[in-house]
Amino acid sequence: MEINNLQIEALVKAVLSEMSCGGSCQGSTCRDMLVPVGISNRHIHLSRADLETLFGKGYELTPIKELSQPGQYACKETLTIIGPSLRSIEGVRVLGPVRGASQVEISKTDSYVLKVKPPVRESGNIKGSAPITLVGPCGVVTLTEGCIIANRHIHMSPDEAKCFGVKDYDFVTVDVDGQRRTRWYDVQVRVHKDFRLEMHVDTDDANSAGIGNGHKVKIVKE
Amino acid sequence: MEINNLQIEALVKAVLSEMSCGGSCQGSTCRDMLVPVGISNRHIHLSRADLETLFGKGYELTPIKELSQPGQYACKETLTIIGPSLRSIEGVRVLGPVRGASQVEISKTDSYVLKVKPPVRESGNIKGSAPITLVGPCGVVTLTEGCIIANRHIHMSPDEAKCFGVKDYDFVTVDVDGQRRTRWYDVQVRVHKDFRLEMHVDTDDANSAGIGNGHKVKIVKE
Repeated sequence: MEINNLQIEALVKAVLSEMSCGGSCQGSTCRDMLVPVGISNRHIHLSRADLETLFGKGYELTPIKELSQPGQYACKETLTIIGPSLRSIEGVRVLGPVRGASQVEISKTDSYVLKVKPPVRESGNIKGSAPITLVGPCGVVTLTEGCIIANRHIHMSPDEAKCFGVKDYDFVTVDVDGQRRTRWYDVQVRVHKDFRLEMHVDTDDANSAGIGNGHKVKIVKE
Repeated sequence: MEINNLQIEALVKAVLSEMSCGGSCQGSTCRDMLVPVGISNRHIHLSRADLETLFGKGYELTPIKELSQPGQYACKETLTIIGPSLRSIEGVRVLGPVRGASQVEISKTDSYVLKVKPPVRESGNIKGSAPITLVGPCGVVTLTEGCIIANRHIHMSPDEAKCFGVKDYDFVTVDVDGQRRTRWYDVQVRVHKDFRLEMHVDTDDANSAGIGNGHKVKIVKE
């Protein structure tokens, strides 16, 4: 079979267009791209009403550090959380901006201290999740639901999703070459034009695998 | 090809002898056998000399609970451990019997509280591991080495090893169908006639995968 230069060019372009991600993979093979990990410590999102109960009427959050996902920030404010054990965890960071509903994300390790039984969920999906009590300088809020263990998930842009050949709400498998080698199954993909490529896990996941913030992991299967 | 009853019997016996594990697999296919998990919380093994420094001359440990591996037991005695952060972890259980050298097994989570940097090791291999201080009712011991994070490992009898087709010091891969599905690589196999089949992981591993004591896991590859 003979093939001329024009045909070669067309084929190469077709392959490149299939793989191209708008430059995110910087010329490497798209599917070999690694994903940096961001480790989420326990934290709290607050509704406007709960913010005011806990910190006072008209109170505004004080941003102290931008987070990796655009528009999200850590605040100066912290709260004490308490569960049925009546043991407290102090200094739990509030993240901004305010949300429609308050939500407390803790680790399984934390859940044994508090004696709460949070389900593993994606952020925002709190219906029927565990109750928990928040104590602030101006008041106390007992959430009847809102305490979850976050699922393992990866944020990415639409270009990066194209790169990896995945779409919003897909689940992927991730290999972690940490101090103790580990594979995470059922990792949820979240795609949004404002997202930056980052995998979010909690402190239990990070400490089990023995990795720190920024460790690179590999998507091994869709 | 013709084959008579005697030949069939000889073949079946040969296959059975190849697969047989002395009954451990109870008639199921050997390699499909599941492994129950035992979760190790932080704990301490003591040498005779350190036991006497911490609890007094001539002191003997008080067994309160037999552990799954024959001859090993949890003791009434607990200690406070302290690292360079000068933050302490109280009530760390001593396990008996006494050993040739003292050893402190903690989780990565604990290591951040104490600010120690223990290597991931098999129990007993403490050369060059992290220093740590133990405080008891009668004295204090500062170990220059002895603090480790235990590696993931499976205890089994020689019959069970035959069943799984593995030998002492092999490494295997284990799949964990917990609240968050996980795979553990590089799991060390330890074979001894006194061992009972059990996989040992620490609280970080258990909490990351969302499993409790006795959860069954599967060896997926040698």
